[in-house]
Amino acid sequence: MQRIEELAKITDEPGRLTRTFGSPAMQRANELVASWMCEAGMKTRVDAIGNLIGHYAGEKADAKILLFGSHLDTVRNAGKFDGPLGVILAIACVVELHRQKIQLPFAIEVIGFADEEGVRYQSTYLGSKVLAGSFDAKDLKRKDADGISLADAIKNFSGDPAKLKSARLNPKNLLGYIEAHIEQGPVLEKNNLAVGIVTAIAGQTRARITFTGHAGHAGTTPMNLRQDALCAAAEFILAVENLARKTTGLVATVGQVKVEPGASNVIPGEVNLTLDLRHAKDSIRQAAHKKLKLIGSQITRRRKLKFANEVVHETRAVVCSEKLSAQLATAVKQQLKKVLHLPSGAGHDAAVMGKITPAAMLFIRCKNGLSHHPDELASLADVGVALDVLNDFILQLAKTHE
Amino acid sequence: MQRIEELAKITDEPGRLTRTFGSPAMQRANELVASWMCEAGMKTRVDAIGNLIGHYAGEKADAKILLFGSHLDTVRNAGKFDGPLGVILAIACVVELHRQKIQLPFAIEVIGFADEEGVRYQSTYLGSKVLAGSFDAKDLKRKDADGISLADAIKNFSGDPAKLKSARLNPKNLLGYIEAHIEQGPVLEKNNLAVGIVTAIAGQTRARITFTGHAGHAGTTPMNLRQDALCAAAEFILAVENLARKTTGLVATVGQVKVEPGASNVIPGEVNLTLDLRHAKDSIRQAAHKKLKLIGSQITRRRKLKFANEVVHETRAVVCSEKLSAQLATAVKQQLKKVLHLPSGAGHDAAVMGKITPAAMLFIRCKNGLSHHPDELASLADVGVALDVLNDFILQLAKTHE
Repeated sequence: MQRIEELAKITDEPGRLTRTFGSPAMQRANELVASWMCEAGMKTRVDAIGNLIGHYAGEKADAKILLFGSHLDTVRNAGKFDGPLGVILAIACVVELHRQKIQLPFAIEVIGFADEEGVRYQSTYLGSKVLAGSFDAKDLKRKDADGISLADAIKNFSGDPAKLKSARLNPKNLLGYIEAHIEQGPVLEKNNLAVGIVTAIAGQTRARITFTGHAGHAGTTPMNLRQDALCAAAEFILAVENLARKTTGLVATVGQVKVEPGASNVIPGEVNLTLDLRHAKDSIRQAAHKKLKLIGSQITRRRKLKFANEVVHETRAVVCSEKLSAQLATAVKQQLKKVLHLPSGAGHDAAVMGKITPAAMLFIRCKNGLSHHPDELASLADVGVALDVLNDFILQLAKTHE
Repeated sequence: MQRIEELAKITDEPGRLTRTFGSPAMQRANELVASWMCEAGMKTRVDAIGNLIGHYAGEKADAKILLFGSHLDTVRNAGKFDGPLGVILAIACVVELHRQKIQLPFAIEVIGFADEEGVRYQSTYLGSKVLAGSFDAKDLKRKDADGISLADAIKNFSGDPAKLKSARLNPKNLLGYIEAHIEQGPVLEKNNLAVGIVTAIAGQTRARITFTGHAGHAGTTPMNLRQDALCAAAEFILAVENLARKTTGLVATVGQVKVEPGASNVIPGEVNLTLDLRHAKDSIRQAAHKKLKLIGSQITRRRKLKFANEVVHETRAVVCSEKLSAQLATAVKQQLKKVLHLPSGAGHDAAVMGKITPAAMLFIRCKNGLSHHPDELASLADVGVALDVLNDFILQLAKTHE
């Protein structure tokens, strides 16, 4: 917890925590975390995009590698836990191994990803994508708010855009990937549990929906002659909520609404809104989207309006490794009466790493489900439980390792 | 119709019709309309705020006065008919009397109000308020977008702010007030009628409604743990529509919606919306508002949100003169198979003038119910019907006048 506080002081913006890719604060954060890794008996390196990696050797030189990771960048005006907690917990596990002079039949690598939040380049997972070999070279042309390209930012960060491809980890050498992270939601708190195990990182559909009716004078157009786009949108918004309530595990949100022309005395002629759908199973998410498009069409047909749906973004769900999750569950059972399995509605580096190696995630309860906010908080007790779970998990894995 | 086209050429903005209070275009419009009044045998004057008034003398010097009026100012990028049509029709009636050398047992005054739309000073009915004696001297301090006060604008327009009070018409000398105006709605068109008679100018309630819930992560907050302000607002919007559909003559509109924080991946924490309620009967409008506040409270109590209602603006309905309306109806019956009585959802100078003298309004069908738009159109045939109705009305009134 001291380390959480120390890292939280390293920021690009005085008075609040903001640490974006390639910034001076990220540089200092990498240096500080590297020093902790060294103290824990790890050899550190920084890869071509600036991910910090600490290596704790196994019994044999050619031992497979168990990866732990999370990200060291933050959103603007961030909390202290989202990202750093996973890195610090993993280092703490290694500290314990190092203190007891335990060498395992596998090596451990702890990764501090250089970019997960994507604040500076409106991107996602730049760090883990490089290690998973899924980095898109087109992204190098992205520019930040000051016009600095990602390629230049990588160079300024002592990285090398030309070596991004070769920075890819070889899946054959990997045992798996474990990420500890605050839940960023209220489910563990509601269930009165310190930690839980992630079943999958939900897939997501983001769509832009448009209802087109007919603007008109709010005073002179009788109700039966209206084609009010907002009333149609209101029906849709309630249908979205209703479907999600009926569908276990589905979350569906309309977060933005734009009403045209948007005057108090004019009947809305057009409404644009965003739809965000997430579920751990792609088929359920896709069926929900199809159903909602149908409902939207039905509403507009009945009201003599037009309906349009444009998919802006779609990501598939990433199912966590059953084997690693079961081993994590065994460790959780040592600490808690109940093992809760829950999906992650938010994205994580594990979604990217899961494509090259079995991945599992441990969620830690956070107060009021709050994240991306200075009040973000995981308790000392809960962090302790998570540390015990991870330590147990590593030792159990060592026992069953062939 | 030629005169409609001529007036439409007089604008403050090249390429589109915009004529605001006290502008050079308003000055030129007054001069042109004054010349038409003179041709029709009228004596013209301009009052202290710049209303143009043409006087067609009655048989006796002390004859009472029948007023006709509408406004010569327009909204920005206006249509050609909203306002000018009523003035031009009234002058056309006087032309006919003058041509036939008819003198009536009452005088006729045709008023071209200098400000009804209130574009320049964000006001309403400045012109008719002066003549009705309801002008509020505080309004003289209002400033336009260039910082020019209304008092200075009146002086520049050859008016006199000090004489606004004495410009008030004496109700004892008045027989009544008649206004012809395009409907600005689709009711006459749907009923296939050229003209209709206004029963009342609807009263209006404008309120600002706020739903306060709790913002949250769209991916990590399960449906049953949400306090989504937008879903509550959607219920309310449909309740508004439903109540108005069930209540004869009520029009209710939510025209503006603001969602906070307004991001596609954040559950809405607060929604602000506008409510516009209008009905020809104040009691029905007030009961509807009370009912909607109750529904809003019920929705938010059930959803554990907060509801707030702030009345921004309220105007009482003005009922048209039964006697004058019946006489107008007799004249309409000469021209059309059916006499349609309908309320006006939009405000008109008749609402102000109705406070000092019996007032009646004749609505003229407009294409697609469209107004405040360059495509605003009343057909030549319909304008002809309106002119015949007004001519008949004047002659009938002369016959029954004691």
